Amino acid sequence: MSEPRLQVSRRQRATPYTARVDALGVSGFSIVNHTILPKGFQKSVAEDYWHLKTHVQLWDVGCQRQVELRGADAAVLLQMMTPRDLRRARVGQCLYAPLIDANAGMLNDPIILKLADDRYWLSIADADILLWAMGLAQGLGLDVEVTEPDVWPLAIQGPKADELAACLFGDELRSLPFFDFKVCDFNGVSVIIARTGFSKQGGFEMYPQGFQLARSLWDALWEAGADFEISPGNPNLIERVEGGLLSYGNEMTRAENPLECGLERYCQLDGSIDYIGRDALLRIAETGPERLIRGVIFDGDACPACQHPWPISVDGQQVGYVTTAIWSPRFERNVALAMLDRGYWEADTEVTVVSSEGRERRGIITDLPMTSG
Amino acid sequence: MSEPRLQVSRRQRATPYTARVDALGVSGFSIVNHTILPKGFQKSVAEDYWHLKTHVQLWDVGCQRQVELRGADAAVLLQMMTPRDLRRARVGQCLYAPLIDANAGMLNDPIILKLADDRYWLSIADADILLWAMGLAQGLGLDVEVTEPDVWPLAIQGPKADELAACLFGDELRSLPFFDFKVCDFNGVSVIIARTGFSKQGGFEMYPQGFQLARSLWDALWEAGADFEISPGNPNLIERVEGGLLSYGNEMTRAENPLECGLERYCQLDGSIDYIGRDALLRIAETGPERLIRGVIFDGDACPACQHPWPISVDGQQVGYVTTAIWSPRFERNVALAMLDRGYWEADTEVTVVSSEGRERRGIITDLPMTSG
Repeated sequence: MSEPRLQVSRRQRATPYTARVDALGVSGFSIVNHTILPKGFQKSVAEDYWHLKTHVQLWDVGCQRQVELRGADAAVLLQMMTPRDLRRARVGQCLYAPLIDANAGMLNDPIILKLADDRYWLSIADADILLWAMGLAQGLGLDVEVTEPDVWPLAIQGPKADELAACLFGDELRSLPFFDFKVCDFNGVSVIIARTGFSKQGGFEMYPQGFQLARSLWDALWEAGADFEISPGNPNLIERVEGGLLSYGNEMTRAENPLECGLERYCQLDGSIDYIGRDALLRIAETGPERLIRGVIFDGDACPACQHPWPISVDGQQVGYVTTAIWSPRFERNVALAMLDRGYWEADTEVTVVSSEGRERRGIITDLPMTSG
Repeated sequence: MSEPRLQVSRRQRATPYTARVDALGVSGFSIVNHTILPKGFQKSVAEDYWHLKTHVQLWDVGCQRQVELRGADAAVLLQMMTPRDLRRARVGQCLYAPLIDANAGMLNDPIILKLADDRYWLSIADADILLWAMGLAQGLGLDVEVTEPDVWPLAIQGPKADELAACLFGDELRSLPFFDFKVCDFNGVSVIIARTGFSKQGGFEMYPQGFQLARSLWDALWEAGADFEISPGNPNLIERVEGGLLSYGNEMTRAENPLECGLERYCQLDGSIDYIGRDALLRIAETGPERLIRGVIFDGDACPACQHPWPISVDGQQVGYVTTAIWSPRFERNVALAMLDRGYWEADTEVTVVSSEGRERRGIITDLPMTSG
């Protein structure tokens, strides 16, 4: 399918940064959580990839909407929503957490920010987790407010992100541990800054509250970034695939469980805590998952975008499917994320990938993140 | 903002019709319920408008996902979700129904199809009502399965829709009452067909189950439609505004209640049934809504797309905002849907609209649907 134009209305929410990325020549968009996500700036994905790995980029990730749980039962509700054990979570910590339904199907994979013992933000991927949390709270009669605060995340990602952050916030951010956050001062207003982000190149995500503050923060970062060859950017598909970063809706849907998604380390499976979907997940854990998300590196010239799962086969028998694929300029081969059946997910297994043009391409299974071509 | 290209991945689900509309030259897309909605076919919106009012169009509305509630408590759960009184709903009936939260904020406005006393489909607008219903069912421990069936709605709309439907299904559909549905036979398989649709030009929505059946139905309608000057189409913005058809996310959000949206006739307000948000809604009903969705017709040349609410003022004081606006070739003026404060919503009230270029335009409030310019 070609890439026709996106029609924008109020229903596709603009962010405080939309006017800025428009002025910077944004050339593609996606929609996440009913909100605009920039997806390209008139450079190739490969050019953008090398820039991200070398300098620093400013990303409009306002589509990462926050679901706030606040009140006496906030922690109770949150633990019901995830198999991740939150008993030792501390204020100031970010926690990547699968959310699952009663069948252990993936509903989302937010980063949880523990703001206080009775207050959490879930920085969500593309699904209305607000409605799931509201429904549970309503049905259970819990003492918790479920809201979408007026918060507009942005990210700076890349090896120069620490330098850039230090310009605005001083050296204190340099020592912020990975997946911790800190409340910083910007123009006299508090902004939460976390050492997180949807790349493996390092950097921060910032959570300004309110449209004006968000735009001021964007502008200040952009201005200070001139010294670091800053560029507008967005989650980079090559870097994401090589890094094994999963995308909800692409690699994970309600039809996949967290063990199939390789998220076992975020699942408490000893029965010591209760959560929705626990019985289903424990049953799956008894024998282990029947399939697993893995990397695939495959031959041929640059593949098209994977808009529907592509079959993966061994000896003519389908053993999995590709969910996301793209040409890697570093490996000089195509790289992909794929779901493989048990028995076929070991590294170096030889497979055949049929891309959407119907072409058969020879491929090999890899670990994630990918370390060699 | 310009209209940059939409990036398509697995997360933006294609429908069985996507390949067909692509071949027919689709030129614009929107995303609804994580699914592609075509938004233009290389004709102007005005050309498309006249065609829709004259002939018949085939619409890919596969994005109208179904939420199925099935089981002993299906009716109980559904009544909790809507202020519409469902006690007399009958099998074969379609019911337009506001869904609201505990504060009476609008969550959606689906058409409910009553398939059986213990089985309903909600044909939803853009929000994950599946998660809301799942959360409620889980929290309340109800005996109901909440699923998204493999159903791909399509629509035929326009004055020749009855003729076209008769070609495939015989004359029995001609007598189908407005907002009733019927189980029809297509190639030996049952398909639900309803006299509904997101236009005021008449026609049907069809609910084929399964990708292959859906595509076969599309192809059969397209082929038979050649005799009726059939064209691919989509909800038409001019026709929708003139007809007063509201769009969730544009006119209605969680910040609006159904009385503000002019949906009082779908709200049981005598206290005889219980539903989530009832107390909040009854409080609002006591004094009536403070604002109301109305039409506005305003001067000047063709306005741009309304991507953010435009202020409406009287004597320099803001009294409302435009949510959707477009040039009407029939009225030869701009037409809009707008939220007006009490005291300013009477027909013929003179107002000033400030469109996104900052231009002041003289306007007048109208009833909905609009009947005169």
